[in-house]
Amino acid sequence: MATTQLSLPDLGRRAKAASRALALVPTAAKDSGLQEGADLLQSRVGEILEANGADVSRAQEAGTVPAVVDRLRLDESRLEGMAAGLRDIAGLRDPVGEVLEGWTRPNGIHIDRVRVPLGVVGIIYENRPNVTSDAAGLCVKSGNAAFLRGSSAAIDSNRAIAAVLREGFAKAGLPEDSVVLVEDTSRQSATEFMRLRGIIDCLIPRGGPSLISAVLEHATVPYVIDGDGNCHVYVDASADLEMAVALVHNAKTSRPSVCNAAESLVVHEAVAERFLAMAATALEGVELVGDEAAQRILPSIGQASEEDFGREFLDLKMSVAVVRSLDDAITHVNRFGSGHSEAIVTTDLVAARRFVREVDAAAVLVNASTRFVDGGEFGFGAEIGISTQKLHARGPMGLRELTTTKYLIHGNGQIRV
Amino acid sequence: MATTQLSLPDLGRRAKAASRALALVPTAAKDSGLQEGADLLQSRVGEILEANGADVSRAQEAGTVPAVVDRLRLDESRLEGMAAGLRDIAGLRDPVGEVLEGWTRPNGIHIDRVRVPLGVVGIIYENRPNVTSDAAGLCVKSGNAAFLRGSSAAIDSNRAIAAVLREGFAKAGLPEDSVVLVEDTSRQSATEFMRLRGIIDCLIPRGGPSLISAVLEHATVPYVIDGDGNCHVYVDASADLEMAVALVHNAKTSRPSVCNAAESLVVHEAVAERFLAMAATALEGVELVGDEAAQRILPSIGQASEEDFGREFLDLKMSVAVVRSLDDAITHVNRFGSGHSEAIVTTDLVAARRFVREVDAAAVLVNASTRFVDGGEFGFGAEIGISTQKLHARGPMGLRELTTTKYLIHGNGQIRV
Repeated sequence: MATTQLSLPDLGRRAKAASRALALVPTAAKDSGLQEGADLLQSRVGEILEANGADVSRAQEAGTVPAVVDRLRLDESRLEGMAAGLRDIAGLRDPVGEVLEGWTRPNGIHIDRVRVPLGVVGIIYENRPNVTSDAAGLCVKSGNAAFLRGSSAAIDSNRAIAAVLREGFAKAGLPEDSVVLVEDTSRQSATEFMRLRGIIDCLIPRGGPSLISAVLEHATVPYVIDGDGNCHVYVDASADLEMAVALVHNAKTSRPSVCNAAESLVVHEAVAERFLAMAATALEGVELVGDEAAQRILPSIGQASEEDFGREFLDLKMSVAVVRSLDDAITHVNRFGSGHSEAIVTTDLVAARRFVREVDAAAVLVNASTRFVDGGEFGFGAEIGISTQKLHARGPMGLRELTTTKYLIHGNGQIRV
Repeated sequence: MATTQLSLPDLGRRAKAASRALALVPTAAKDSGLQEGADLLQSRVGEILEANGADVSRAQEAGTVPAVVDRLRLDESRLEGMAAGLRDIAGLRDPVGEVLEGWTRPNGIHIDRVRVPLGVVGIIYENRPNVTSDAAGLCVKSGNAAFLRGSSAAIDSNRAIAAVLREGFAKAGLPEDSVVLVEDTSRQSATEFMRLRGIIDCLIPRGGPSLISAVLEHATVPYVIDGDGNCHVYVDASADLEMAVALVHNAKTSRPSVCNAAESLVVHEAVAERFLAMAATALEGVELVGDEAAQRILPSIGQASEEDFGREFLDLKMSVAVVRSLDDAITHVNRFGSGHSEAIVTTDLVAARRFVREVDAAAVLVNASTRFVDGGEFGFGAEIGISTQKLHARGPMGLRELTTTKYLIHGNGQIRV
């Protein structure tokens, strides 16, 4: 790419210029660009896998742990998956241009609020090279330039994928700079990236706690945090206990490493004895740690510290708390939860209503697994992350959350008196 | 107030606790609280004006300029205005509880997206003590606790107003800590305030460029920037020139000190000679500075520097640029504008469509004064500011922009397969 020698602000200005053009491109052209990109990802498999091989060898030589090397590694089927992802995005409805509301004022001016792209979406991410195509696809479909800053470990793969996508997008007449990859992967460049105010319209950091705290500390551009999920399942006194066991089992074990997996079980004392015996059997293989009351019922489990209740294990481990009332359950969830997804299992209408109103989280579920809080499960088609913040986007973020709005006002000479 | 001795985080926790209760309060109770607060503002006029007198004397002794002292000063009619403001807010529709969308997934889970309060809204503001009641009213009506940090110059007034509002709100059964005023007005306390992550759900800084840059640099809590308005009026080749003169006159002179006032006039060269002669007459009393082409037509005006084109004068001063095409006009506006409000005067449909699509701003107007970009003029009833950022809120922010949403998911035992 000709962009290798450019400074970070210059790269950003290219993305900005591309975003101005891309904002005006009709949906059909964006969709062809995504299809062309998908085709090239598959026809250029050799080139991409060669680049990826360089990343993988470097990681292995550096003694990187196998799980991390695996996340880095691409093969033909993973590339097919990435291509399929771009084709899926091409099939989604374009959010740009939607009129959200419109009204006429007494003086005759007419106001419309219309959905428009954000502009330049900056994404800082870690090892997985598939993020390069997923993020580029979502950004471009929503009319935004994707300004990507991946990790040094994946730089060869990312460079190859970005080059192919740029070529594919250009074939369909989209600006080549619809995707701009930052090749300087130093820590200083990450910090500089977060401070490109006036260039990056929205930063989405995708990474662990140290990246998030760097963003909170240094970013001057607007950002959306895709935070932790310390999700609870509360089993109410009135719960259907068979259902509760099935939900807890699904929420904890179907994919423990993801943010919508349950990390903590909260049980009303009226059903704690019966339910925890059932749950302990169903959750065989899951390490449980509990408070005193839980330990009295299940003497073999370890003690849960305060820290355990606040922690996202992302593993086959779960904390257990026994509470004396719905009030205590709500207090516990609001105290330890991370504002992601919280579930109640109950047959009591009043308890359900109180739980959904009083628990402060992006999603609150009644008699359903926390695992449903996901862009795909919501029907959004694809997601760029799950926001645990309250501004702009809360919960699963699809194409719509990659847009902003603009007021269009039409008059015939009105002045303000 | 008993809160005087508390640390900033302790004050914040009080606001947080109040926000949890306030989020569940029915509209009628919030409205009575606003009415009680309004009544007390009027019945306790003596007490408030005495406190205000102390602020005013201190400012005068310190040699503060009269315009600033005037902004600080309250009198009976200003207090009546503040009370009327609270009663107006009581009359607005409560945004909390609105169901924005709802759908059922193929597996039977039902998803609703519901409007809920943000929680604790932090506001840092400068001298005007009326912000204390305006902000408290808007926050409480939208179910949020107002966590207020005013200036040291207005501390006595703010303390008196907050005390009266707390009393009024409590009379209606709302939590007293629905309004919490920070009495430590040191610079360190402002910085600490911006970093109360987990306590402040949304920070709205209301002040000048130095406050905004302090927020960008130090804040770790989510914030919405109420930025500058470097607003343009572009007079197209096809414009009705009489209309254009009236709009520019209104946009520039009806209230030069506000953010939706026009700061710059951009004229198509085809009509520049005729139009600028008309405009110069209509804008008598306004200092015009122009580019070379404008100066050729109006030889008496000063030269506009690059800096002039980027500046929000907030005064009877206006920059003038002559452009050769619609393209150049759009480029000029996107380059120098601050993303607030931009207007075109035209009779050409294609020009109007291109301008509204290609200009990147919170509001784009066709044949109407920029002065209409305002919560009141939009029909929002009241506004907490005008956002020039793209995330969360863009343009005038009313009660709705003081809320977030929550997904409520109801199932009957669904698990994710």
